[in-house]
Amino acid sequence: MYGDDDPIAAFATTAGNSALTLIRCCGKGSIDLASSVFAPAKNAEGNTVVHGWIVNKGEKIDEVLVSVFRSPKSYTGEDSLDICCHGGFSAGKAVMEALKDAGFRDALPGEFTFRSFLNGKLDLTRCESVMELVGAKTETGRSHAVSRLSGSLEKEINEIKQLLVKVLTGAEIYLDYSEDEVSADTDEIKGKLPYQDIAQEVLQRLKKLSATWQMERLYQEGVTAVIAGRPNAGKSSLFNSLLKEDRSIVTEAAGTTRDWIEAWVSIEGIPIRLVDTAGLRNTAEPAEKIGVEKSRKLLQEADLVLYLLDGTQGVTDEDKQELEGKKYLLLWNKCDISPQPQPISGSIPICISAKTGEGLAALYSSITKTIKANSGPDLQTSEVSLGSARQKKLVDVSCAALEEALELANKEEALDIIAPLLREAVNALGEITGEVSTSDILDEMFSNFCVGK
Amino acid sequence: MYGDDDPIAAFATTAGNSALTLIRCCGKGSIDLASSVFAPAKNAEGNTVVHGWIVNKGEKIDEVLVSVFRSPKSYTGEDSLDICCHGGFSAGKAVMEALKDAGFRDALPGEFTFRSFLNGKLDLTRCESVMELVGAKTETGRSHAVSRLSGSLEKEINEIKQLLVKVLTGAEIYLDYSEDEVSADTDEIKGKLPYQDIAQEVLQRLKKLSATWQMERLYQEGVTAVIAGRPNAGKSSLFNSLLKEDRSIVTEAAGTTRDWIEAWVSIEGIPIRLVDTAGLRNTAEPAEKIGVEKSRKLLQEADLVLYLLDGTQGVTDEDKQELEGKKYLLLWNKCDISPQPQPISGSIPICISAKTGEGLAALYSSITKTIKANSGPDLQTSEVSLGSARQKKLVDVSCAALEEALELANKEEALDIIAPLLREAVNALGEITGEVSTSDILDEMFSNFCVGK
Repeated sequence: MYGDDDPIAAFATTAGNSALTLIRCCGKGSIDLASSVFAPAKNAEGNTVVHGWIVNKGEKIDEVLVSVFRSPKSYTGEDSLDICCHGGFSAGKAVMEALKDAGFRDALPGEFTFRSFLNGKLDLTRCESVMELVGAKTETGRSHAVSRLSGSLEKEINEIKQLLVKVLTGAEIYLDYSEDEVSADTDEIKGKLPYQDIAQEVLQRLKKLSATWQMERLYQEGVTAVIAGRPNAGKSSLFNSLLKEDRSIVTEAAGTTRDWIEAWVSIEGIPIRLVDTAGLRNTAEPAEKIGVEKSRKLLQEADLVLYLLDGTQGVTDEDKQELEGKKYLLLWNKCDISPQPQPISGSIPICISAKTGEGLAALYSSITKTIKANSGPDLQTSEVSLGSARQKKLVDVSCAALEEALELANKEEALDIIAPLLREAVNALGEITGEVSTSDILDEMFSNFCVGK
Repeated sequence: MYGDDDPIAAFATTAGNSALTLIRCCGKGSIDLASSVFAPAKNAEGNTVVHGWIVNKGEKIDEVLVSVFRSPKSYTGEDSLDICCHGGFSAGKAVMEALKDAGFRDALPGEFTFRSFLNGKLDLTRCESVMELVGAKTETGRSHAVSRLSGSLEKEINEIKQLLVKVLTGAEIYLDYSEDEVSADTDEIKGKLPYQDIAQEVLQRLKKLSATWQMERLYQEGVTAVIAGRPNAGKSSLFNSLLKEDRSIVTEAAGTTRDWIEAWVSIEGIPIRLVDTAGLRNTAEPAEKIGVEKSRKLLQEADLVLYLLDGTQGVTDEDKQELEGKKYLLLWNKCDISPQPQPISGSIPICISAKTGEGLAALYSSITKTIKANSGPDLQTSEVSLGSARQKKLVDVSCAALEEALELANKEEALDIIAPLLREAVNALGEITGEVSTSDILDEMFSNFCVGK
């Protein structure tokens, strides 16, 4: 899919009403190619910035700053350049055309990072953390991605693998020895896995690592929380309060239809897609009916439903009908002007006032508690955790092979049956960092990257 | 409004799903401040790029490349840094927080370019061209902005001013001399403007320059062209054909309501906001009625209306009613399957087929011809032109003062009445480049800039 080291270029920033646009180039001969459309002529050293003009067919295209990197001291390990041109829609486009006229081709998604991997600059866990970092929705997400970008996971995997290799090597030496000596005492081979205690330790570390993914995935992907309730229960007020209270809003997305609006908020580092729906009620009016149907669909897809009761109205029949047999987080709104709630199906609603902000802190706690209840152990700040489903799958493969190996050892099976399992466990770990890899694996992984990375 | 040289920082690229984000910093002590949140410690020379981490309160925030510029060799002339961090919504935000913790403040819109002006790096015409370049909607727009960024207008203004100063100085010397000598021969003072031929030449150059703005403004701001016609005349097909034909689409804006859609296209370098409206017809149906009313409002605001007739239906009564007394560009659509059109109010419609693409080239010509007919002389590629309404206003002030001076000279008025007019003409030119300026003027100008510029 990807080229070898031919010159590629891509926009590394989003086009928009911005001051600057960054175009990234790399590949064999890239500095010479870029120089052919740059004036005044300069022979720049690596890690320097030159100022001048991109010139195409004699016409000045844009005034630019060009950062020059010379192999191997660059992101990809190849000669490369970051061209900083003016922002907006026109300048970058014209500079890109000049670069293509000079001989660059459009980079494919993830192609820069792919080359970085190929040239030994980053292992696969760090490559993945780059995309993770770009996609991070909250501070916690960023912080975990940065930890992996710094190599925390690579280090952990390599440490575990080294231990496992020690076990494997031990087994293989034993096998070799026993073959050579043709020992009559087959008991010595059977049931005696060398470094069995190390293998046990490795298994525990792998299991612990595997368990981190559930929570990590939550930090990466977040959950959808839908605010529901009858008309005038105060849904939009709550939506706005949660948005206003929370200063770490990631991004606001305009609703795709008029029927609901949504925004991402961060609650204790977990990205929450908050959706405000049309009021739920039985209606014959066609337009409203469509709205209510869409709300119901959103409710079904939601990870969490905040069901808002109007405290001044109490629990109506429509509420009862709606709540029947469903697990909603019950909120008793307008608590500043309404009586205390009674338990509903055994649980007491959380008293809040979207208007005064009362009870919102308790609501945040309940939300995170509910979400985390389904997501395995929480992560400690310093803890090494997995960053992708791919990694999780491979850790589990390694885990399963090792577990089987240990079981066989306990049953005193022959080492020549156990050793291949250990080999499999080692290889799966090698795949995580990319020490073992096939072009299929790589293509699939990098094609999920954005262009310019 | 703006600070002097205190350390400022701003995002120079748009937040989005991009590989990288660029943060620009400058000001006194900015390199030391940035170093306090950068690891490993480096004492970078100017125009070099260093690689490392932004670190805040002991936590790694992001892996970055930092371009370091040392005064006076930088955009603003101050010490400054471009910090290239990871893209997306989180990394840049966290880096910006680290910078603020270190002592940077948010830059105001245009503050970098303002400092650039203050420090003599760019005159005002070049400052304005920076914003013009960022906002350029077409290749022509970019090319004209780049010409001014290269200093073409600054050079022209300075040349004209020098000539005018020569005339002014001549007059003042004459005045001084005559005062000293108390010459009885007042005829020598009266009606004898020294270098009157130069003053005439200057007047012509100023008038020529002034005339460029009308066309330049067209290239910058563009026009709104609305496609109108009865339902099923083929409006949406034409809209799509124009979008598809034209490969230099600047940006597509989703319509703000369901009632019309729009997109920017570039026709011969002129940005055209193309609007597709709801079909025009007399209707009693409430929803459609609202749509038709909105269409009529868009028609009123349009610079150009492409009125589409359905060639297979001919000119209906509704068409006649709509066209009555209005200046529309008439299009005879579906010409591939319809009879030839008859003249309507004396003009023959342009035959097109939105479906086959027939006649679109002729349509493009007609569109540009119609637009340019109202916009003064077209600009030659190499021609120096004005880039802003501010410049145009000042050129006209200069022109008027000089014209009056020349009229008085022709009437043989005394030089002490003429000289102040020449001074006024010179000063207006000085204001264009910023040689003469007040903080009011500057505040107003730079506050229209985007943040990060």
